Amino acid sequence: MTEISDKNITAAMLVIGDEILSGRTKDKNIGFIADYLTNLGIELCEVRIVADDCDQIVDAVNALRQRYTYIFTSGGIGPTHDDITADAISKAFDVPCEFHPDALALLTKHYKARSIQFTDARMRMARTPRGATLIDNPISIAPGFCIENVHVMAGVPVIMQAMMDALAPTLKSGTKMLTDSVDCPLGEGTIGGPLGDIQEAHPDTMIGSYPRFKDGSYSTQIVIRSKNSAAITAAKIEVEAMLEKLGVNK
Amino acid sequence: MTEISDKNITAAMLVIGDEILSGRTKDKNIGFIADYLTNLGIELCEVRIVADDCDQIVDAVNALRQRYTYIFTSGGIGPTHDDITADAISKAFDVPCEFHPDALALLTKHYKARSIQFTDARMRMARTPRGATLIDNPISIAPGFCIENVHVMAGVPVIMQAMMDALAPTLKSGTKMLTDSVDCPLGEGTIGGPLGDIQEAHPDTMIGSYPRFKDGSYSTQIVIRSKNSAAITAAKIEVEAMLEKLGVNK
Repeated sequence: MTEISDKNITAAMLVIGDEILSGRTKDKNIGFIADYLTNLGIELCEVRIVADDCDQIVDAVNALRQRYTYIFTSGGIGPTHDDITADAISKAFDVPCEFHPDALALLTKHYKARSIQFTDARMRMARTPRGATLIDNPISIAPGFCIENVHVMAGVPVIMQAMMDALAPTLKSGTKMLTDSVDCPLGEGTIGGPLGDIQEAHPDTMIGSYPRFKDGSYSTQIVIRSKNSAAITAAKIEVEAMLEKLGVNK
Repeated sequence: MTEISDKNITAAMLVIGDEILSGRTKDKNIGFIADYLTNLGIELCEVRIVADDCDQIVDAVNALRQRYTYIFTSGGIGPTHDDITADAISKAFDVPCEFHPDALALLTKHYKARSIQFTDARMRMARTPRGATLIDNPISIAPGFCIENVHVMAGVPVIMQAMMDALAPTLKSGTKMLTDSVDCPLGEGTIGGPLGDIQEAHPDTMIGSYPRFKDGSYSTQIVIRSKNSAAITAAKIEVEAMLEKLGVNK
């Protein structure tokens, strides 16, 4: 990481594609990005999924880029008519969408070496908003791009993941959120009251409880998150004491 | 279905939960809802994922409920302090969040029959915005609720799915989107140009192309969607003719 900041570094993700909204394709990128950013100490605050629709993309990008440190998008940067992400991002920033000379050079070389025709469709993948910088795509060459705090990546998971790896060293990293958890054989209805009291007494932590429902009964995973490990330990001691009081053996 | 409309019936989904944004839990509800609504002829136009944060939920609900026929939410209706969906939806509609008498009666009976204490935490699950109607939960009883066009469901997938089944007969159903597809062994870069021409010539259809990347080369699934089956057939004939011209054998 080039810089570690004490400030909260925040992010939103924008998934672009009709195929996710119709159910034809099941998204695999949100969970990946969520884990990836959490590991970098960047807080993913919001995700939106929109169609391959220019106005929807423009509205979402302009709403999100004002609000968060980073925006990551996936999808819509391929060679076909329904790949309109570069055009929409250009419109959001009110700059022309034009051939990026480095992207053109990369793709020209790539297709020439493979004796594949550099069709007009393939040339579409060299278009970016004016002023964008490229994100390396070691897998299939056609690059992603960054403009200001918006990072535009492919939708194919293996390519998106490689682009995220290329991007990571350029991102500001926040103080990493630490986490610990307590498995609880009781349902949330039993522990909900006292757990709320513990949360109130430990404002430096975020205490979440996640029900599991199996064979007709609930159990709960209690997750304590904080940037301060001592705060987690203090809250965890109280959670364990509460469970003991409720008759749960360690 | 109570009513089939020729008009476009649209929807948005709002997923509520820190655990999805942190990566701890991988969402399984978006893909389910996308498939489910597509089968009902309801067009899912947008999805948002937000944290367990009242302002974020209020903003998202108020933005989405103006724009689409239906809003479906998942998550945040359990018994613990971080389950704030009922409060946030009440705030979005500017009505009090209060005990719903039918929900209280259901839960009182349920816990009494099982000799389980009806704790304050469990009573939280009987709170809804004033004026809400309940969504049946055959699995764990604590109901979801509807207020105007907003339908609030659990985050646990098996319960959300049962609630969706309970809800479906009350929804207006649109003309169902029909779909057909053509498997294409060529990459999008090869077919992108002519496929764009076919899309232009068939404005009654939406032609999507979805790359697959395996073992270093691309193939493509071409998907043609329309509410008019004759329009799909006409476009498909042109797609197949294009592929034959490019040397693809049927």
